[in-house]
Amino acid sequence: MSSDLLRSFDGLIKEMGYRNRSEAIRDLIRERLVQQEWQLANKETVGSITLVYSHDIGELAEVLTALQHKYHKYVLSTMHIHLDKHNCLEVLVVKGKGKEIKRIADRLLSTKGVKHGKLTTTTTGRRIP
Amino acid sequence: MSSDLLRSFDGLIKEMGYRNRSEAIRDLIRERLVQQEWQLANKETVGSITLVYSHDIGELAEVLTALQHKYHKYVLSTMHIHLDKHNCLEVLVVKGKGKEIKRIADRLLSTKGVKHGKLTTTTTGRRIP
Amino acid sequence: MSSDLLRSFDGLIKEMGYRNRSEAIRDLIRERLVQQEWQLANKETVGSITLVYSHDIGELAEVLTALQHKYHKYVLSTMHIHLDKHNCLEVLVVKGKGKEIKRIADRLLSTKGVKHGKLTTTTTGRRIP
Amino acid sequence: MSSDLLRSFDGLIKEMGYRNRSEAIRDLIRERLVQQEWQLANKETVGSITLVYSHDIGELAEVLTALQHKYHKYVLSTMHIHLDKHNCLEVLVVKGKGKEIKRIADRLLSTKGVKHGKLTTTTTGRRIP
Repeated sequence: MSSDLLRSFDGLIKEMGYRNRSEAIRDLIRERLVQQEWQLANKETVGSITLVYSHDIGELAEVLTALQHKYHKYVLSTMHIHLDKHNCLEVLVVKGKGKEIKRIADRLLSTKGVKHGKLTTTTTGRRIP
Repeated sequence: MSSDLLRSFDGLIKEMGYRNRSEAIRDLIRERLVQQEWQLANKETVGSITLVYSHDIGELAEVLTALQHKYHKYVLSTMHIHLDKHNCLEVLVVKGKGKEIKRIADRLLSTKGVKHGKLTTTTTGRRIP
Repeated sequence: MSSDLLRSFDGLIKEMGYRNRSEAIRDLIRERLVQQEWQLANKETVGSITLVYSHDIGELAEVLTALQHKYHKYVLSTMHIHLDKHNCLEVLVVKGKGKEIKRIADRLLSTKGVKHGKLTTTTTGRRIP
Repeated sequence: MSSDLLRSFDGLIKEMGYRNRSEAIRDLIRERLVQQEWQLANKETVGSITLVYSHDIGELAEVLTALQHKYHKYVLSTMHIHLDKHNCLEVLVVKGKGKEIKRIADRLLSTKGVKHGKLTTTTTGRRIP
């Protein structure tokens, strides 16, 4: 591998906090493998769903809770944070096939009153050494 | 707006679970505003950091805990899940300026033993009606 | 729709150069429809593939040309630019099913000597009014 | 590096068409460096802008041409393709500082009648060995 390329890379990863180059390369490889895990929509995988919403909207919390119960088989855990007087943040960790997780995220994100939401695609860790 | 465009959009959002078109359009607008919030690196905002790691690696949990204490001013809350005998998932919700949150995420993701990690950029909700 | 939300959006889109709000909303909707077009991997669609490479590497240009001929059914057109004495940029516009276009992009991007490459997913325009 | 990780990676990259592992790792590193090149908004870099639009809309072609002349210092080359009777695709290759290229892309994408547009961030190749 050209020494120029490695020098540039070393500069970048030092800034990010990596102690050595091989850990940084391992992470690039793992990230690529997780991407593939999600493209193969039928493998079991894990996602976290982050929602920001206002609890001023009466029934929203109830609707979100009902949805989580409907999908309780998939939802491993949730965390709720009061950002300020009006705004809440909720994170759900969800396990299932990629397309099932995406479907649950769609349902939650499309609920009226959810200001912002995102599905973060991660991994069970089992196929990622 | 052309009726063809709206018809295609209605098909898509029905599948996602939206009850009506204006909520779906509101969400597209909000998503765009959150993106901008993060481009202006000096506004206070919120992110969630998702980490998957193996707790077989002795000191990793300690290192991650130490990092979270170092940045305790920013970390609002964390959640920990045992995915299986070897793999853990941890979500941190972090509040601060965009570039500070990115820095904390870089530090956590570059820690040796973290298999996969991602920063999800969301919002305080305050500037997103 | 809340006037706060629209005011924030109007500020953003003015900066981007939009003359009016409905054109900006149309574009958000279209972008969402194009994303869906690519998720349904079996619809005919269009992508552009951007490659940067050094022509110092003897056989690279030949390999790239051979690949383009192999996939000539899909490649609508290409453009070549001499960035400097060493570096070239090439853009190919490719039409086919999403998964076929991805396959061609993979082949081109993985060719030895290609420094950087990316598939940009766009549309035939036919299903996007 | 763990042999499990390398075995999974080898499977993936073989599918993508890579001949050997080091070329694939080089590409992961280069991709990361190009990302950084764009985060440092003041370095000279290169982007390609892909636009799909209908030429039924009278003045659109003129407006796009006028914009390209306004920014002629940055536009290295353009390519135009007739996708069908109604739809055109145009690719512009643009060189400049990251924020200048983004500004030009914003102007083009926000032009009325452009159905879909995207900025693809690539590189001059000079700092990417």
